[in-house]
Amino acid sequence: MDLPIDEQSGRRRRGLLIVLSSPSGAGKSTISRMLLESDSTITMSISATTRPIRPGEQDDVDYHFVSDAKFDAMIAAGDFVEWAPVFGHRYGTPKVPVKDALRDGRDILFDIDWQGTQQLHSAMGEDLVRIFLLPPSLAELERRLHQRGTDSGEVIGDRMSRAAGEISHWAEYDYVLVNSETESCLADVRAIVAAERLKRSRQAGLVTFVRDLVGTRGAA
Amino acid sequence: MDLPIDEQSGRRRRGLLIVLSSPSGAGKSTISRMLLESDSTITMSISATTRPIRPGEQDDVDYHFVSDAKFDAMIAAGDFVEWAPVFGHRYGTPKVPVKDALRDGRDILFDIDWQGTQQLHSAMGEDLVRIFLLPPSLAELERRLHQRGTDSGEVIGDRMSRAAGEISHWAEYDYVLVNSETESCLADVRAIVAAERLKRSRQAGLVTFVRDLVGTRGAA
Repeated sequence: MDLPIDEQSGRRRRGLLIVLSSPSGAGKSTISRMLLESDSTITMSISATTRPIRPGEQDDVDYHFVSDAKFDAMIAAGDFVEWAPVFGHRYGTPKVPVKDALRDGRDILFDIDWQGTQQLHSAMGEDLVRIFLLPPSLAELERRLHQRGTDSGEVIGDRMSRAAGEISHWAEYDYVLVNSETESCLADVRAIVAAERLKRSRQAGLVTFVRDLVGTRGAA
Repeated sequence: MDLPIDEQSGRRRRGLLIVLSSPSGAGKSTISRMLLESDSTITMSISATTRPIRPGEQDDVDYHFVSDAKFDAMIAAGDFVEWAPVFGHRYGTPKVPVKDALRDGRDILFDIDWQGTQQLHSAMGEDLVRIFLLPPSLAELERRLHQRGTDSGEVIGDRMSRAAGEISHWAEYDYVLVNSETESCLADVRAIVAAERLKRSRQAGLVTFVRDLVGTRGAA
């Protein structure tokens, strides 16, 4: 099947699966939101989760909030590209939206952890662009978690004790950014996305473009 | 040996060897000049060549202009990372400046053709970032060659007949850009350079950074 035409280049290209991982509080959600706002050609992958909905979150927007029984049924039906337990709840990426987006040549952003990234890498390999955000320091990470105000002290303590474990997987990512300043970090993520779109291997339409280019010689 | 500290990130990183190739007239020289002006951390590799100096060119700035006998001696002494004949003259990249720049963690830009790129890739492999510029059409390419006004009609005819051959090597490059508009093409090249610098594999200083990051935990 022909890939759709890319709006910017006017040529056909493959979609990107952009993974953004970080320990909680390192800025993943903020950077994700700003990236989506700045580039309408990227859509967010909506994970299914068994964790309770938080104040301000919307079902089927932030997550598909499902019961444990429903999650079990989705696993049994092979509905997930990847799923993993995190902080006592389960998170999974539904398969159909990912396949649809790749087929349509759209880019998808994934806000998932190292376990999900490993599974997504096994399943999707070369379509994946893996970006890891590091906090400038653990003290800064803890300050941001308190500032967010959505977690209890106990949950923050839990997140902090898991941060080092999450960070230990930094070397499994293609790009590693230290998020010291949000605007600068966003610019870096946007540069990575721009560059990845320009990779020869993703620009399926180039074969036709070059054939037509050289084919115009006689008429030039 | 420790790599020097990167000015932007404050961490040690490996240098990049950035190759920009295109058929003559596709904008390689203009984009190269603008990239160097916009980013002082990149320096140009100065090739040695046996071709005559053109009006406006400076020896040891644009090229090291050498005799055929001198070029033969440099080959014999193993002074080149790569060399190749182009349009009846020879061009080569001296080895010492490249080794010095890599050792110092500086980025170098190469304005070389597909033959030089293949050799540089064999010699330097993963330090190389290969970018190919395509013209939007061959008619536009010919128009630009006439506009430049530095070549005779005969040389332009020769360049045009070789353009298709040069273009046929586009698939040997990591990134392929269609240079329809200079500013946009420069922005794409700058995004590629920014992204490549953020690749985990190039950020040698991250190992120390993450060790110190996790090591601060007790004090956080």
